Amino acid sequence: MPSRRERLFAALSRIGADAFVATQRPNQLYLLDHPDPSVVISRPNCNFILFTAKETIVFPGIWISNACRDLLTGCEVVTNQPGDPPAGAQLAARLQKMPLKKIAFDRLGPDVAHLLSQESPGLQAVAEDVATEVRRTKDERDLKGMREAAHVSDLGMLAAFRAIRPGVTNGDVAAEGVAAMLRAGAEHATMHVMTGPGAFYLDSAEDSRRTIQAGEMVFIDMGISVHAYIGDQTRAGIVGEGTPQQRDLLRTVQQAYQLASQAMRPGASTSAIYQSVIDLYAQKGWATYFYHHISHGLGLGGDPPRIARDAPDDRLRAGDALSCEPGVYVPGLGGARVENMIYVAPDGPEELTKCPMEPPMGF
Amino acid sequence: MPSRRERLFAALSRIGADAFVATQRPNQLYLLDHPDPSVVISRPNCNFILFTAKETIVFPGIWISNACRDLLTGCEVVTNQPGDPPAGAQLAARLQKMPLKKIAFDRLGPDVAHLLSQESPGLQAVAEDVATEVRRTKDERDLKGMREAAHVSDLGMLAAFRAIRPGVTNGDVAAEGVAAMLRAGAEHATMHVMTGPGAFYLDSAEDSRRTIQAGEMVFIDMGISVHAYIGDQTRAGIVGEGTPQQRDLLRTVQQAYQLASQAMRPGASTSAIYQSVIDLYAQKGWATYFYHHISHGLGLGGDPPRIARDAPDDRLRAGDALSCEPGVYVPGLGGARVENMIYVAPDGPEELTKCPMEPPMGF
Repeated sequence: MPSRRERLFAALSRIGADAFVATQRPNQLYLLDHPDPSVVISRPNCNFILFTAKETIVFPGIWISNACRDLLTGCEVVTNQPGDPPAGAQLAARLQKMPLKKIAFDRLGPDVAHLLSQESPGLQAVAEDVATEVRRTKDERDLKGMREAAHVSDLGMLAAFRAIRPGVTNGDVAAEGVAAMLRAGAEHATMHVMTGPGAFYLDSAEDSRRTIQAGEMVFIDMGISVHAYIGDQTRAGIVGEGTPQQRDLLRTVQQAYQLASQAMRPGASTSAIYQSVIDLYAQKGWATYFYHHISHGLGLGGDPPRIARDAPDDRLRAGDALSCEPGVYVPGLGGARVENMIYVAPDGPEELTKCPMEPPMGF
Repeated sequence: MPSRRERLFAALSRIGADAFVATQRPNQLYLLDHPDPSVVISRPNCNFILFTAKETIVFPGIWISNACRDLLTGCEVVTNQPGDPPAGAQLAARLQKMPLKKIAFDRLGPDVAHLLSQESPGLQAVAEDVATEVRRTKDERDLKGMREAAHVSDLGMLAAFRAIRPGVTNGDVAAEGVAAMLRAGAEHATMHVMTGPGAFYLDSAEDSRRTIQAGEMVFIDMGISVHAYIGDQTRAGIVGEGTPQQRDLLRTVQQAYQLASQAMRPGASTSAIYQSVIDLYAQKGWATYFYHHISHGLGLGGDPPRIARDAPDDRLRAGDALSCEPGVYVPGLGGARVENMIYVAPDGPEELTKCPMEPPMGF
């Protein structure tokens, strides 16, 4: 596989551009030549990184200029001291001196566009996020990062489920899960623990102080990053035996996951995958209650592909990585969702997530 | 003190408006008549809440309509089922039938503005966030919420410092702090732990996998919410005895905190407070390295006042609540910051934060 930089410049040449400016942290981390750029640019506050055929120039802005200056090698870092011009003006001044014809930005705000049109009227600046498309096809480094993030998410989910027993609060459960992931190397970890008698609510009415009762359903989602790679996982369970209806809901959601994930092969139509899940839920009369997306891309953030009711049809490719999370929320019965991280290998889907579908609870 | 609703309508009458639409979660939570709206609207995804002189009408959007419908009382909730019109269209249709003349939105997007101009050409819609200004002066319920958030932040900071010893990682420390706050009732908690030999970096180059060494400086900030009230606290310390320069840095930052916080009285000029801290740091030759803000407002989020280099001069008022965090970052020496939550009582500043300035470490 060609290098990240080679693939970036191949994409640029297809749109006739000779340089790229990364303003978004996932693109910056992806393209910087550093063993772990996530610990240098640890927050989304680096203003611009300019990639030309020969050079990499970082315009960090004052808050992080020292870290970039001291820790990055193989690139130039424009330092900022209090009183220096803002990063946008420094970028425009530098571009003025360069013999570039067309430059692509992943995001191009009106202020910077105006500055460039004033200072470099011969330079065509366009907003075309070619880097995010390049990031879609995962390389070895991505795969290593995603495997580690999935592993950390497994540890967190197992620890959270182990903490579940009647009488503890949702917050107690989240505390164990989050702590396990921070100890295991996540630089960022949040966990949403939702419990209720069944007819509880999706994406609202969460109360971390709520005490878990026997017979309730539980629903845990998370958002973590490990070396900037997204880790994501959802599990649903029943605190105790549960009712036949609760068990049927869980089983059906797990079936939907199996159906969708096994279809995640190179060449698969994303709309067909979505429709197959609708059809499965339709057998229960739940087709209209399935309005969750099935997949978002995985990697450093904002990666395609996306599989959802409102997403255009797409074909999966070898090297894609995406979540599989066909949740359903049935009025009067409850909501459930399971979610794994999937890598689309040439010969089919590989589950990066290893946590069992119904992790053991602590009682 | 008049009720929240009375104060909202007094503010509306000053701009000649007869209704308000809250699109931002802090305003929604503030104005809803419910003992703990933060557990009903637990994420920022409720579309609109319309407040007229007589009615409260919630347009939640599909994701949370069930929770709002089932858990809110004393208001009308417009339910959404799959296939129903979007919340903006439902709001416009409802407003068309109401005899209103001028309506203020806290945020008014172009799509909704266009819809209203089409469907209710006689209704003047303006973007004026009067609710955030009303929220500035804290009432009893705010004070209770902020005290609880400050208490939870104390527990987290104490637990984090207790976990600090040479050989543990930044992530180990964050794990203990975050877990303590989640167990104590925070619905959301993150903690940034930064360590280094002294010349470490602000707001970047954080590595949660980094092992803490004796003699290093440590710097912990957090972001939490408890019943939606912001808890915020920063502490700096030295792992062991440290050098005279490190101790001087810590002492000076603590002095700056004392100077600024003691000045936080009704009537105080925020620019004068800022200048007093510049003057203090100037005695060390550090005036140009003080570019951090001193204060942001506290409460449900986005509250005034703000004290910063780029903020206009303002007068503090009885009932304000704000952070006090005059951090300084000295090249070659290091950065340090301490931060407490301050309530501006009629007779002067009250520290809501009770954690000691240098909490005991675990060795």
